[in-house]
Amino acid sequence: MTIKQIPLSELAGKPVVLLLSGGLDSATCLAMASNAGAKVLALTIDYNQRHRRELEAADALAARYKVARHIRLPLDLRGFGGSALTDDIEVPKEGVLPGIPVTYVPARNTIFLSVALGWAEASGGSDLLIGVNALDYSGYPDCRPEFVAAFEDMANLATKAGVEGTARYKVHTPLQALTKAGIVQAAVEAGLDMGMTWSCYDPTVDGKHCGQCDSCRLRQKGFQEAGVPDPTLYAEKPPSGGGA
Amino acid sequence: MTIKQIPLSELAGKPVVLLLSGGLDSATCLAMASNAGAKVLALTIDYNQRHRRELEAADALAARYKVARHIRLPLDLRGFGGSALTDDIEVPKEGVLPGIPVTYVPARNTIFLSVALGWAEASGGSDLLIGVNALDYSGYPDCRPEFVAAFEDMANLATKAGVEGTARYKVHTPLQALTKAGIVQAAVEAGLDMGMTWSCYDPTVDGKHCGQCDSCRLRQKGFQEAGVPDPTLYAEKPPSGGGA
Repeated sequence: MTIKQIPLSELAGKPVVLLLSGGLDSATCLAMASNAGAKVLALTIDYNQRHRRELEAADALAARYKVARHIRLPLDLRGFGGSALTDDIEVPKEGVLPGIPVTYVPARNTIFLSVALGWAEASGGSDLLIGVNALDYSGYPDCRPEFVAAFEDMANLATKAGVEGTARYKVHTPLQALTKAGIVQAAVEAGLDMGMTWSCYDPTVDGKHCGQCDSCRLRQKGFQEAGVPDPTLYAEKPPSGGGA
Repeated sequence: MTIKQIPLSELAGKPVVLLLSGGLDSATCLAMASNAGAKVLALTIDYNQRHRRELEAADALAARYKVARHIRLPLDLRGFGGSALTDDIEVPKEGVLPGIPVTYVPARNTIFLSVALGWAEASGGSDLLIGVNALDYSGYPDCRPEFVAAFEDMANLATKAGVEGTARYKVHTPLQALTKAGIVQAAVEAGLDMGMTWSCYDPTVDGKHCGQCDSCRLRQKGFQEAGVPDPTLYAEKPPSGGGA
């Protein structure tokens, strides 16, 4: 399934709620939306993730791009359990394997997009932006275009504007069809300082990317395949080719 | 649009995530699910609502029904604005009018059901329960069966179990087709102590229901039309017939 991509240039001057984790993908979306002249409302969810370092990256990126507003919202998902990102479950380091890994956080993107929808409706906007992609990824179900399309349909029945027909909510996913190398290339074109972004699920105590988790492997693979110098400090280099 | 109702008896012994606000509707659902022998996981969202009194009602109800687990999750929606329930906007007291009132909280049920979905998936369950209804209600778009059906479709694309085909998520809405009088009757049949529930959007300083907001008017109308004694302490009685 593919989704028709609306050029971000159509967002010029419009409010758009951007989910900003602090990772490479969402930061690339931020640079693209900012270049397009959108009025960026950046939403960062502090869900008590293991890799809290990404929250600092989100703060720095929101400041660098002078977003119209940045909300860092506490929404503790630890209590539910079920994920290596929120619980006492080890982050896998053996490479990206088939299937959905234990780093999957149940319904994370559904929850985050729902909160974004609430902010969009309250602010009078109807555009959401999320950096999901489903090629070089960890197999999370809520990164796939089928999910995004179903979320849009639901959003237009859930909201006042959807019911009154005064707005049609759109979830923009400009990275959906890109490989990780394609995302690195898009980031270069958008002028993003990729050293400001954070990907690692399991940061070392001295503040480096671990180099072994799925997210580090995909990140390195992206830089290598794009032929772009990787500014990231890794504690340990994974096998050549990224091992992803 | 109607939704096929699955008898709650099918939930016997199964985990079900119930959205428990502390109001009459969700409390009735709690009594029904408890009577059916479900393993109730009660989720109460503290969104910094004006009527925080309902959170105490939720706590007391969860304790009374000895739910398997009760999570009271802080999720501050004040920052987004746009609602009389979270902002410095007056709660209307002139009666239930056509259209969507300012007490609508943008995307509230979408957000709450999404969080419930996360808990359901993490706990290995696939049943959600919410007390929405769309007859004697305030016109909120996210109480309608069309919305609930779209949410279910989305949930089954958003989740691991949905993708792997090992579960089919179901949002139970046993009150969907009932009037407020029908809900009061259902509560009586379920043996609910309705004096434990809280409906008012704008509690008085001495802890009474205001008697004038939409929620109070619908509550009173329900008791009156059902011919059931109303245990609620109202600061002021609305016009005869509930004015709703």
